[in-house]
Order: sequence, then C-alpha cells, then structure tokens
Amino acid sequence: MKKPSIPKGTRDFTPQEVVKRTYITDIIKRCFMSYGFQPIETPSFENSETLMGKYGDEGDRLIFKILNSGDFLRKVDDTTYSEKDATKLTSKISEKALRYDLTVPFARYVVQHQNEITFPFKRYQIQPVWRADRPQKGRFREFFQCDADVVGSDSLWQEVEFVQLYDAVFSALNLKEVVIKMNNRKILSGIAEVIGAEDKLIDFTVALDKLDKIGEEGVKKEMLEKGISETAIEKLQPVFNNDGSASEKLTLLKKLLDTSETGLQGIKELQFIIDAIEALGLQSANLEIDITLARGLNYYTGAIFEVAAPKGVDMGSIGGGGRYDDLTGIFGLKNVSGVGISFGLDRIYLVLEELNLFPATVSANTKVLFINFGNKESLYAMKAISKLRGLDITAELYPDEAKMGKQMGYADKRDIPFTVLAGDEEVKANLYTLKNMKSGEQEKVTFDKLQNLLK
Amino acid sequence: MKKPSIPKGTRDFTPQEVVKRTYITDIIKRCFMSYGFQPIETPSFENSETLMGKYGDEGDRLIFKILNSGDFLRKVDDTTYSEKDATKLTSKISEKALRYDLTVPFARYVVQHQNEITFPFKRYQIQPVWRADRPQKGRFREFFQCDADVVGSDSLWQEVEFVQLYDAVFSALNLKEVVIKMNNRKILSGIAEVIGAEDKLIDFTVALDKLDKIGEEGVKKEMLEKGISETAIEKLQPVFNNDGSASEKLTLLKKLLDTSETGLQGIKELQFIIDAIEALGLQSANLEIDITLARGLNYYTGAIFEVAAPKGVDMGSIGGGGRYDDLTGIFGLKNVSGVGISFGLDRIYLVLEELNLFPATVSANTKVLFINFGNKESLYAMKAISKLRGLDITAELYPDEAKMGKQMGYADKRDIPFTVLAGDEEVKANLYTLKNMKSGEQEKVTFDKLQNLLK
Repeated sequence: MKKPSIPKGTRDFTPQEVVKRTYITDIIKRCFMSYGFQPIETPSFENSETLMGKYGDEGDRLIFKILNSGDFLRKVDDTTYSEKDATKLTSKISEKALRYDLTVPFARYVVQHQNEITFPFKRYQIQPVWRADRPQKGRFREFFQCDADVVGSDSLWQEVEFVQLYDAVFSALNLKEVVIKMNNRKILSGIAEVIGAEDKLIDFTVALDKLDKIGEEGVKKEMLEKGISETAIEKLQPVFNNDGSASEKLTLLKKLLDTSETGLQGIKELQFIIDAIEALGLQSANLEIDITLARGLNYYTGAIFEVAAPKGVDMGSIGGGGRYDDLTGIFGLKNVSGVGISFGLDRIYLVLEELNLFPATVSANTKVLFINFGNKESLYAMKAISKLRGLDITAELYPDEAKMGKQMGYADKRDIPFTVLAGDEEVKANLYTLKNMKSGEQEKVTFDKLQNLLK
Repeated sequence: MKKPSIPKGTRDFTPQEVVKRTYITDIIKRCFMSYGFQPIETPSFENSETLMGKYGDEGDRLIFKILNSGDFLRKVDDTTYSEKDATKLTSKISEKALRYDLTVPFARYVVQHQNEITFPFKRYQIQPVWRADRPQKGRFREFFQCDADVVGSDSLWQEVEFVQLYDAVFSALNLKEVVIKMNNRKILSGIAEVIGAEDKLIDFTVALDKLDKIGEEGVKKEMLEKGISETAIEKLQPVFNNDGSASEKLTLLKKLLDTSETGLQGIKELQFIIDAIEALGLQSANLEIDITLARGLNYYTGAIFEVAAPKGVDMGSIGGGGRYDDLTGIFGLKNVSGVGISFGLDRIYLVLEELNLFPATVSANTKVLFINFGNKESLYAMKAISKLRGLDITAELYPDEAKMGKQMGYADKRDIPFTVLAGDEEVKANLYTLKNMKSGEQEKVTFDKLQNLLK
C-alpha cells in the first residue's frame, strides 16, 4: 500500500507547531480585543460570483473552485459541453469557490450585515485562505491570514492606532525593534504630479519600490525605460537622498511637493500620525517614513504600512496594510472608507524561531507521567492525576503495567520532565515519589508538596 | 446590484457568536491539554484517494470535490469526455477534496508520521469539516468537529479518562447533570449471539437503538419484521426491563450473557470503567449504562459513549465516541487500537444559550469609550487608552469630533457600559470624568481610580 501523503502546498501541523502558532495568534487576538476589534468568521467557501473578478485575471485563475455536488453535468447543454473548453465549463459545473483572502469576504459581510452593524466597525479575522499558486519555499496553497480593519471612519486616529497595535503585538511577542515603515499614496501621486509623470504613476512607483533591491541607478534606468523623462528623474533626486529622520524627510518632501495639493495633503496626514506617535511613544518598534513603499498601490488611497523584521533578520515584510476607500463599493455600498493591517503569521513564526523567542513554557508536552504499577496503584495515581489536571497541570498515567524501562523510555522520548512512582509502599504511606527526569533526583512527597513542585 | 449572500448551509459568525464559540472551545482545549492530549492540524483538503471509499457510497457523494486548477480538461481523453458521465469525469478533473471528518485525516496523519510519533499518541483536533448534505435546521455544510483520540493503547484506563474528560469539560462549562451513556459493542454482539440472531446483528441493534423513540412494542415489531424469531425476542425481555442502577444492569446482563464469551468480556470492560469512576468520582455528570446505545456500530469494537444534555433540554446527543480497532489499517498500519470522543460544538452552544450559561463576561464589547473633544483632548485620551489596553481593558476613542449626542448614541448602540469625558478642564486637572451608561452617574477621577473602576 502506498504511504499516504497530502496535496502539495499544504501542511500537517505537529503538536509543537500548533502550540507555537497558537501562542502567536493568542497574543494577536488579545491585542486586537484590547483595541476594540471584534472577531468575525466567514464561510470557507463563497458563491463564485462573490470572489470572481475581484483579484484580476491572475487571481481568478488561482481561486480554487468547488465542483457542484451530484450530477453536475445535468445542467450543461450539449453544445457548450461539446466545445470542451475548461474556462467555459467551469462556471457551469462550479458555483462555489474557496476564500482567496479575508478582505473580499469582509466587504461582502459588511454589505450583507450593514443593518446590524454600528459604524465605525472594527473587526478582526484570523482564518485560512487558499490559492492555487505554484508551491515553493515559504509559499503555501493553504495559509492563515490575520487581518484587522476598521470601516466607516476616515479619522487619522485609526492610522495612529494601527501603528500602536503593531507595536503592541510585536512587543508582546518580545520581537523588539521591528521597523514600521509608513508612506502615503497621496505623496506618491504628488511626486508623480510634480515631475510630470502623472500618467505613469504605476510604472513610477513599481520602479521606486525596487530601490532596496536594484539601487538608485537601477531605479533610474527602469524609469527611463518606462518613458519617464530625464528631467523628471532629475527632479526626483531629493527622494533618493532621503535618509534623514522623519521630520527631515517631511521638510524635504514639503519643498518638493509645494505645488501639489494632493502631495501636501499626504504630508499633512503623515505629519499627524508621526506627531501623535511621538507624543504617545512606542514600546519597542521604530516608526519610519519610507517613500519608496507602494504595496498594491491601486488598492490604497492614503496611508501605506509595512513592517520589517528587526535588522539582521532576512525575512521580507512580516505585516502590511493601509487605507483604502470604497472597499464595499464592489458590493453596492458606496463611500465607506476603511483602513486595515495584516500580520504575516508564517513569517512571524520563522522569525521567532530564528531568534529563539518562543518561551520555554510554550510546549505541548505533558508535565508529569505517573508510572503504572497495576490497577490498584493506578487508581491511587489517577486520584492525584485528576486533582493535578484540575489545577491545569498536565498529568498522565502510563496506560499499561509495562516494564519500568519501557515506561521511563516513554517519558524520555516524549520529553516529559517529571515522573511519579507510586507503588505499594507509597500508596500505604499516602505519598508520591517524584523523579526529575533531567537530574535523576527523586524524593518522596505529600500531594500538597507534589502539586507545589509541579506548578 | 444584487445584495451579496453566502452559500446555503454555511454561516457568517458575528462577533458575539465568535466570542461565545471561542469560550466553549477554549475550555475544551484547556481540558484536553491538562489530560495530555496534543493538538494537531491537517490541511482542509486531502488527496481524493485519501478520503474516497472511507465513508460508504453516501459519504463519497457528500464529499466536496475541488476542481483541478488550470485547463482541467487537458488530460481527459475524448472518448471518456464524450460519455458525459459526471461520476466518471469527476476523478479526471478533480484530485483533491475537502475534509469530510477529522477521523480519516487523523488516521492518515498517524500513518504518515508514524516514525516521529511516540505511541500511545493522544491527539486532539478542532477544525471545520464540509459535507454536501441537504441543509436543514441545525445541519450545516460547514461545521466544526472537536475530537480527542488516543491510538496505540488498549488499556481501559483510556475509557476511564474519557468519561472523566467529558465530566471535566461539561463541569467547566457549568453544564451540570449531563448524562454520559455507555455501552459496549461486545455486549450487543453477545446478546445477538445468545438469542440466536448473530447474523442479524445490525438489524437487531438498529431496532434496539430506537427504543427511546418507538417504545418496546415498536422495537419488537421491527425485529419481527427483520426476521428475528419470536423466541429470540422473548429472550430479550430482561433488556427491556432494564431500568436499574449500573450494578443492577450488569448483574442482569451477566445472567443473560453467561454462555457468551464475547458478552462476558464486554461486561468485564464496563465493570472496570464503572468501578474506576465510582472510586474516582465525577464532578457533575452522571454515568449510565445504556445497552440500547449503538451509534455507528460497524465502526466501534469496544466501549461506546454518548452524552445527552441535562434532562429537560431537548437536544439529542452533544457528544459521542468509543473504541475502534484498526483505524489506521485503511492506510496500511495494522493493529493500532484507538479510542476517542467528540464534542458537538453547535449543539453545546445551543444548550448553553437555552440555559443562559454563557457568563456575562463572555462578550466582544468594548468596556469604555472615550469621547472625542478634538485633537488635543484626544491625545490626552489616547495616553490613558494605551495604558488601559496594556492592562487588557478594552478601550476606544471615538474617532471623530462629532456632536456629543452622536458619540453617546454610538456607545449606547454598541452596548458599551462606560464612557470617559475628558475635555479641557479634565486635561488641565489631569483627571477623567467616568460615566456609567446604565445608571447615568458620573464622577471625576484620577487615572489610578479609573483603571480600578474599569477592571
């Protein structure tokens, strides 16, 4: 018989992995809740019409479609069928599709439940999504997204809160010195405007976004290739030499953008957030302005955020987000502004692993194994075990009266730090022999002492 | 534009629902962990060959199949295609399917990871499953299962532990007096044997299982119809008059089954569990023997469990399980005995709702809303809010400087119990006016007093 396997791009999570992932999501949830974000959950599959056409052609291709149940060919007329065209056939034999992200289902939720919702609505959502992407290192076909958004408010205090929220989560994870990079779509538009490349905003920002990777000369070359004039690129020079503090950057930008109303509005917004964060302080994160930051530009209309792991950790972004207008417009509810951020769970996991930041207490291990000396002794053991479990101390009885070596070996293999030996003698004296599996030391104790030692 | 909707049989969960569901699963997880069960997670979709053929023909039909990505017709030869046969086409255009339960993926996991696992392996798993069932009240196409199993041990202490575990979970949920019903497949086999209806074991147990619904006469009628002889049914009489305590039932059964080795073995097993539980005690559940209990009989080989809601709550079973042999045999790993139980999340939710057992603290609500009096005052408010959030007190700033009535109305609509008014005067005096939204009372306090009042 063939050894069973799982589909490529998917994962089994072992106990140790689940416990560590839960450690991360529990901290994120706690922070979300304390900021007033409320959890929602949406179905794993949506009607195809809800998802299709929302992520571009490439997105449509990567959406997993679910075959209709029963005789799915019944409704396909012979003419259509005879064409043997997969694209045409899909819509006839599949009406549902797996969630591709959490944003479109959230927009659908808001529109569908608009009469029950009090706006502004702050929601968080941590659920898996599925993409038929080519699997590769670090890219999966099933992965969790972890989003917080607020819709129905254009107050800049929301942006301030999201900076604080990033700081709160990463500080609680003991991941210090993450870099929260911030930009504003209006500044990018303003720059394109003043250098006379308004019609090339996308090309311009795509090139600028590569500054880290291909350097100043590379960016300039790409812009030239895309038809942005030499004069325009010259005007950009201040942007490339923009290494100062946030206020220095803003001063410089103000000069560059002084003829662009949009650009100045973007600066004003950034200034508000920077000033508020300066007054409120951050626990451990660093907030920086990065005017090369674009992310899905077409999507964002105001602030753009991205979080980088602490310097020295090569991991790309571990979070990102921004302000978007009219998210719910695709479902007919106009003029609802939103802003949101997400956390990259898989990457955060890898960073914590690399920096050894998972606390030792984050473990799926059992704390103490009671050795099985037979039914009478086991009953004595089970009484103690029940009490320990009531105190949330993970305790187990070895299920069979096996040889001592086998039972001890089991404790070793499972990395269980303590065993209790309670044979005839202990039962009579109402005591327990507690053995430290690391040091090998053992002592005979009362139940009270036992529970104190195991706490 | 059409108002968006979700596929039939699926659900959106509102914040209040998510928080209540999480309350239940958190308690279950805590109990699972304290009993030494370790969490695993498996992918939402499996290779079709892993799932197909494991749940019978009906099950195969109800499994959601995922359409292959890209040009899924490419590999379908014209002859097969021209038959236009949905069943034949399915295996050509779909290689993956959504998880139908957690048991088969668990068996697959155990076999695939057998070299990393230390047996006995105690695992729990709480994940959604999908079934293309006809949706109806209380039956969904996407729902969560919540399973704990141990594989690789045939010790009866496992059964004892599962009884304790049910008791621990329902006691922690404050759902008292649930009835844990227990039976044993060997007893059912033994009864069929002694009444001479061995070849009709399924018909016999299916009829017996209906005793609650159709009464003694109904059961006897059905048995007759299925070809079980009158003499055989007469011998069954003690089973119908079996209302006594657990030990009375066992005594009676011992007499009935004294010629069946299998039957007596079943009694011995029940006796062991009953005796152990009697010695260990239960917190709030009642353990009963119910020899009409069968559940998926073909599946179970020893103990069978089912949990009923407390008397007076009409809900059917809220949990069930039992011992099975050779679960992993379907994937080539023989002779691994297992025993497990599951919790019916949706029904437990409904019972807790009906009996009003969700604690008032189980809420997605924000505790305190700070009124927005403008940017300067908001910054003052945000400093307090940050500190409160650090103490896990859910606090929010109203995002805009709206009219007082609107801001208070927002707090009301969202059921936020406290508001803080901190205007110019409070800022100057470094104080906060805390308003109780229910009583209308308000007082001016320091931050220390504020945090104490909100805790």
